[in-house]
Amino acid sequence: MGVLVFLKGQFMPEAQALIPVNDRGFLLGDGLFETMLVVGGKPFLFGRHVERMTRGADFFKIKMPFSPEELQNFAAQLIERNQMPEAVLRLTLTRGPGRRGYAPDTSCEPTLVMTLHPAPPETRIQWKLVTSSFCIPAGNPLSAYKTTSKILHVMAQAEAVAKGADDALLLNTNGDVAETASGNLFWAHENMLCTAPTTCGVLPGITRAIVLEICGKLGIKLKVRAIGPEALRNSEGLFVTQSVLGIVPVAMFDGKPLKSSPLVYKIADNYHETLTA
Amino acid sequence: MGVLVFLKGQFMPEAQALIPVNDRGFLLGDGLFETMLVVGGKPFLFGRHVERMTRGADFFKIKMPFSPEELQNFAAQLIERNQMPEAVLRLTLTRGPGRRGYAPDTSCEPTLVMTLHPAPPETRIQWKLVTSSFCIPAGNPLSAYKTTSKILHVMAQAEAVAKGADDALLLNTNGDVAETASGNLFWAHENMLCTAPTTCGVLPGITRAIVLEICGKLGIKLKVRAIGPEALRNSEGLFVTQSVLGIVPVAMFDGKPLKSSPLVYKIADNYHETLTA
Repeated sequence: MGVLVFLKGQFMPEAQALIPVNDRGFLLGDGLFETMLVVGGKPFLFGRHVERMTRGADFFKIKMPFSPEELQNFAAQLIERNQMPEAVLRLTLTRGPGRRGYAPDTSCEPTLVMTLHPAPPETRIQWKLVTSSFCIPAGNPLSAYKTTSKILHVMAQAEAVAKGADDALLLNTNGDVAETASGNLFWAHENMLCTAPTTCGVLPGITRAIVLEICGKLGIKLKVRAIGPEALRNSEGLFVTQSVLGIVPVAMFDGKPLKSSPLVYKIADNYHETLTA
Repeated sequence: MGVLVFLKGQFMPEAQALIPVNDRGFLLGDGLFETMLVVGGKPFLFGRHVERMTRGADFFKIKMPFSPEELQNFAAQLIERNQMPEAVLRLTLTRGPGRRGYAPDTSCEPTLVMTLHPAPPETRIQWKLVTSSFCIPAGNPLSAYKTTSKILHVMAQAEAVAKGADDALLLNTNGDVAETASGNLFWAHENMLCTAPTTCGVLPGITRAIVLEICGKLGIKLKVRAIGPEALRNSEGLFVTQSVLGIVPVAMFDGKPLKSSPLVYKIADNYHETLTA
């Protein structure tokens, strides 16, 4: 029977979870999504993910068909019915079926899907990162939202995998460090943690926000600033933040081994405590 | 019963043309599309559109499930069965259903859809163009392909419509004139026609290519160059090129009326002859 999917207010086997071909999510990438970890039966930071999706829905004028409370309730049912207390949950919201052409029809009824996926392996991993040949626009107002128009990130990830790496460093059109294909990037420098400002064209990641809060809590000095990629090579440690894998230390950058600051493990441990609290 | 749709090798009523929720086109805008005019029962420049889609499929490593000849045959059947000799034809090719995450699964079986839509009105139109608050990256290798990751163009078009305009001028991250939300842009200057080079981040439009050929044929001097938006205000005429509406003269730009060079109408007349030949 396969996994159950939540689609348009109902639970149904995946094989029956179908979308009309004129859904603008399918035709034009006209949608938003969120991915989060399910730990002990609960979607981690569900409220923050829904808050980001709601902000996106307001910006793109896509109707949000359910309240955060309703969504949380449906998510709990989905996890329960599938008996998947350790999993990855994806929420997708598109503008829904509409007529041809870019200009959105204000009468569109949105499509909301929730799906569950296998949890990532629990083993601690270290990544190889390579610089992507693709870059993202600096100062792009759309980068504040997690849209489904993600073909650049798909290509950057595919390119990294083809090079034997795990993730791709995306520079922006100014040549500054922005993010990776799968998450945000932090680097340690002179006993400080640094990350790129959102004005670099960076998605304001939920795990990025958690790391900023951990820095405040632990009194770790933090600098949010734009730098060129050469500075990363001399950093004292590098890690990627993302909602599925959390804190992922980077061991190799463009084929060269990196130093590993104790700050990276301090953050990783603290994040892990939050996750399992 | 509604219009018939071509999906995965079969013709079916639109209501039955459904896509699995895990299609990467729906999840990540991981696909390509082409839109063309159907005139007298024939899709105009079908070969060129399929050629661009095939180039994209090669680049993104999406399988092309049918040969150009097969596609042309299916398109002819779709037009015939729907009795829509005057229409708009859209081809959509996505990577197809796949597992969660950006990195594409090489085993994906692609989704190919062909749909017919009402023909645009035949009356000659003139457009109001406004400068978008969104910009596209200059020198982006992905801009050579018509992908389904189009939320920026959706937003630019929505913004233009909200301002009472028909289309939006998109500048690139260098501040140069690139394209419009719906097509390419040409301007007349000192008895020459000008357009932005593809290095500006511009989609190499099929109608753009036809206009370049018409210029050669009629001996109209052509300059492909990057300019700032202020130069457009003083141009002797402006027009948008796109596959559905062809050559669309721009009468107003950011609220100011524009001159109208005879070159614009020369190109429009010649294009119309090609279309109806």
